[in-house]
Amino acid sequence: MARRRRTSSVTEERYKSRSVAEMIAKHGEFAGFQNPTRALYQTIRELVENSLDATDTKKILPWIHISIKEESRNSVNGARPWYIVTVEDNGVGIPVTVMAQAFGKVLFSSKYVIKQTRGMFGLGVKAVTIYAQQTTGSPIEVYSSTAESQYVYMMKIKIDMKNNMPKVLEKGDWAKKAAWRGTRVRVKIEGDWKKAKSKIIEYVKRTAIIAPYAEIIFETPDGTIYYYPRTTRKMPEPPKEAKPHPHGVNVEDLREIIASSKARTLKELLVSEFQSVGEKTALEFLSKFGFDPDMNPKELLKREKEGELVKLVEALSQFKFRAPKSDYLSPLGRDIIIEGLTRMFSPEWVDAVTRPPKSYKGHPFIVEVGMAYGGAIKPVDEPVLLRYANKIPLLYEEREDVSYKVLKSINWKNYNVEFPAPLIVLIHIASTKVPYKGLGKESISETPELESEIRNAVQEVARRLKSYLIKKEREEEAMRKAEALAKYIPEIAWSLAVLSKPPDSWTPPTPEEVNMFKEKLIDIVAEKVRVVGPGGEEVDMKKLVKRVVDSVELE
Amino acid sequence: MARRRRTSSVTEERYKSRSVAEMIAKHGEFAGFQNPTRALYQTIRELVENSLDATDTKKILPWIHISIKEESRNSVNGARPWYIVTVEDNGVGIPVTVMAQAFGKVLFSSKYVIKQTRGMFGLGVKAVTIYAQQTTGSPIEVYSSTAESQYVYMMKIKIDMKNNMPKVLEKGDWAKKAAWRGTRVRVKIEGDWKKAKSKIIEYVKRTAIIAPYAEIIFETPDGTIYYYPRTTRKMPEPPKEAKPHPHGVNVEDLREIIASSKARTLKELLVSEFQSVGEKTALEFLSKFGFDPDMNPKELLKREKEGELVKLVEALSQFKFRAPKSDYLSPLGRDIIIEGLTRMFSPEWVDAVTRPPKSYKGHPFIVEVGMAYGGAIKPVDEPVLLRYANKIPLLYEEREDVSYKVLKSINWKNYNVEFPAPLIVLIHIASTKVPYKGLGKESISETPELESEIRNAVQEVARRLKSYLIKKEREEEAMRKAEALAKYIPEIAWSLAVLSKPPDSWTPPTPEEVNMFKEKLIDIVAEKVRVVGPGGEEVDMKKLVKRVVDSVELE
Repeated sequence: MARRRRTSSVTEERYKSRSVAEMIAKHGEFAGFQNPTRALYQTIRELVENSLDATDTKKILPWIHISIKEESRNSVNGARPWYIVTVEDNGVGIPVTVMAQAFGKVLFSSKYVIKQTRGMFGLGVKAVTIYAQQTTGSPIEVYSSTAESQYVYMMKIKIDMKNNMPKVLEKGDWAKKAAWRGTRVRVKIEGDWKKAKSKIIEYVKRTAIIAPYAEIIFETPDGTIYYYPRTTRKMPEPPKEAKPHPHGVNVEDLREIIASSKARTLKELLVSEFQSVGEKTALEFLSKFGFDPDMNPKELLKREKEGELVKLVEALSQFKFRAPKSDYLSPLGRDIIIEGLTRMFSPEWVDAVTRPPKSYKGHPFIVEVGMAYGGAIKPVDEPVLLRYANKIPLLYEEREDVSYKVLKSINWKNYNVEFPAPLIVLIHIASTKVPYKGLGKESISETPELESEIRNAVQEVARRLKSYLIKKEREEEAMRKAEALAKYIPEIAWSLAVLSKPPDSWTPPTPEEVNMFKEKLIDIVAEKVRVVGPGGEEVDMKKLVKRVVDSVELE
Repeated sequence: MARRRRTSSVTEERYKSRSVAEMIAKHGEFAGFQNPTRALYQTIRELVENSLDATDTKKILPWIHISIKEESRNSVNGARPWYIVTVEDNGVGIPVTVMAQAFGKVLFSSKYVIKQTRGMFGLGVKAVTIYAQQTTGSPIEVYSSTAESQYVYMMKIKIDMKNNMPKVLEKGDWAKKAAWRGTRVRVKIEGDWKKAKSKIIEYVKRTAIIAPYAEIIFETPDGTIYYYPRTTRKMPEPPKEAKPHPHGVNVEDLREIIASSKARTLKELLVSEFQSVGEKTALEFLSKFGFDPDMNPKELLKREKEGELVKLVEALSQFKFRAPKSDYLSPLGRDIIIEGLTRMFSPEWVDAVTRPPKSYKGHPFIVEVGMAYGGAIKPVDEPVLLRYANKIPLLYEEREDVSYKVLKSINWKNYNVEFPAPLIVLIHIASTKVPYKGLGKESISETPELESEIRNAVQEVARRLKSYLIKKEREEEAMRKAEALAKYIPEIAWSLAVLSKPPDSWTPPTPEEVNMFKEKLIDIVAEKVRVVGPGGEEVDMKKLVKRVVDSVELE
């Protein structure tokens, strides 16, 4: 067995290489695998997010089955429990040609395009494979089939850590009988269900909130089954792939674009490889900065043209191109946010906004905010924050997140909300590049453009909440007045009945006579006050006033 | 030119590989390169920290020259400024055989051993190389020579991003005339000195605080030169390389250890490849868990022995081995912390503690805390925190750091400190694995063992501060009393001089007679009050009382 360490002869410092798989293995904490609790949580996340990406991409109504089972085993006393985690979906499936690498090669991914996806780094599920190898020594097991395929394929995959290459321990294939399509991943890891339980349950719940179009079944090691049925068939439009925006490229990016482009002139390069650049803009830009539109871009890759290449990048970053396109982003949309918040929290009021697209450093983004108030929501000391990025719920590191900081700075009294209050705020950021603080994707950096857009979105919905609260207060006031008035109706009705008779032939009014006046008075009071109930429906004031009248008579 | 994209035939999802260099290029934010301000700061950090590692390792008294110059150039209007950053040291130097890779291959490093070093990931300086390529298109330039070498070598290095391999654009060597040894790195990057200035100056200052044994010269683009002369020749003992502790290994680690070990039996493997395991312990451990001490460990690498290998790791993590050794850690030591705080802040009181070693998950660590109070320090609303990890100053993300959280939770009133107060707290964590939150190495995770040790250390020094403050208060009280008393001395002396004469032959006392009594009274008062001054020296009370007496007489 060859020793890998390269010992240099002239110094005691020993230099050596590490593969990126070894790097992740040594520093799992950066991928969210710092301890058995986080590792179990992160494993669920990575698998569920892959499943959702695999359904979203083709607008497939998702069906996702998550299961965690404790492995019963006779092992070393006091050793930590092992769990078998299984996640199955009805997504597009993984072609057998890339299956081994997709699970067994760090930095191999379908997510390396400019597109809004949950996955971004090409790390997540490989970090799961590595963690399984490290803790239980077992491979990750994958069954998958694409719609086009005649077969279901299975592989048990480990990672050859030194070379960052997949090792397939076992494989098989079966002819498909039914039209099954999807992926089923099974992995055995060390974990701590007791400690991770509340976060994992919350994670699945929050996933369900913004995916009312998904059917999600979650079996816990305790035997509990959480079932989130599909409540709508309306799905957001899938995200689309985009070309880079000129403001978002650096020298190395441009080098790569030129190298892989078929464009034979600079003008063609700009028009065909970038977004927001038409023929006219390209020519205007090139002439402004003194570039020859007919130059072969490959020329710029030559060593002596280095300066030109750099100058082109600087020019691209300075020129006023159209803002990045955002029609390839896939926000949740107002309806889905309202649907999700309503079915999960049964609030008395709910609203949401999808803001117009903005951009930072050439990356477009959309902020969405939903709020739910009252009803079944319990009053708490600060708003409950539900954070999402590219449709992923974020649960850890809340206080380090830009959304938390914005929310913290809102003066809720300006919006007629006095804490403790029953308020939930959902914030979703959709972008082709979410500025996460770490590879574990738990909190988002304070990018100024993002911060200001989140603030705008929160304020917009908060103003609507304020209108509702003001209206509600006025109506409650009107209601109180109507009730106060109603209390006098029996007495006034009796008096009117008495007064309506000629004084000379006075007889005590009959109940029918009194009732007639009562009915009329009820009509008058009921007509003057119109109240809209918590669900938006008009309150039947006549019924309400009648009830008050009856209760007075019973006294 | 071959297109790198691998398009799978059966689906539209395009899968591809990324090299780790491309990963860092796309996500520079994780390595501290999120914008031109942070990038300039991070570049200085990476180069200075390499220089300090290169001197510490052989206990060489460091001489470090840092220079940042703005590049004057005619470029696109409104383009960001470029800076030429140069850092030179007198460290061990980089052997020419590894020079290209050390600067041009991500995840190639001399730091992949169990040792307390500033560098950890094998990323830092390569992230600088990548950033230079991305922004100015220029290579990193390195001059270096080891003590043993007859030559000084130079290379201009770029990274071939697709393959994560160095590209040497230019190289040269010169026969050494003097006995020069060290490294000089020069790089041209986009940056924002105006915004980064205060942080970079602070960074160099904080580096100097804990390295009073180093000579540091820092030239800024403004033309200012910061010079920190060496004020002590006492250096901490260099860190030493250690073997892994049995509690810190997982299945993949053990597999690697076995593969590269020459041990022919399990017993030999444990004794030779691990720390804290002697022959007796090894035998006791193996028999307890039913392993054959004479088994060839390579057997465990066979597929069918997977279960045994996993069982061995679990057993290792359960068995009560001796705690990780810490004598290979290199704390700063109390003297250096006191020296550094004193010369930088001229406090009235300073103290420090180096706590005994502790460990977490098989990694030993030492916490050190220094405090400086009063003197030239200005009162502020909360203690000024100087954070360090493996002798690196940490400046960003303070509020996310475990040290900040501990400090925030301290009730300073218990230690007689009422804010605003002139208090500086220095916290240093030395470990073979510092639990950083990110690759940018700016904040440290709340590891419970670490948190409790930081608390202990802060409390220990705070108690000493409290003693000082109590004593100081008492002494100020005594001083006030002595002064009050001293004011009456002239009058009492006169009266005593009068009274001491026989009433029958009374004459007014001569000044000499009065003076005699005055001197005696001064002696009495001065003897009763002993006060220690801010520097720890005893105050000459006689002089002080005399001064008060004289001032009274002048009135």
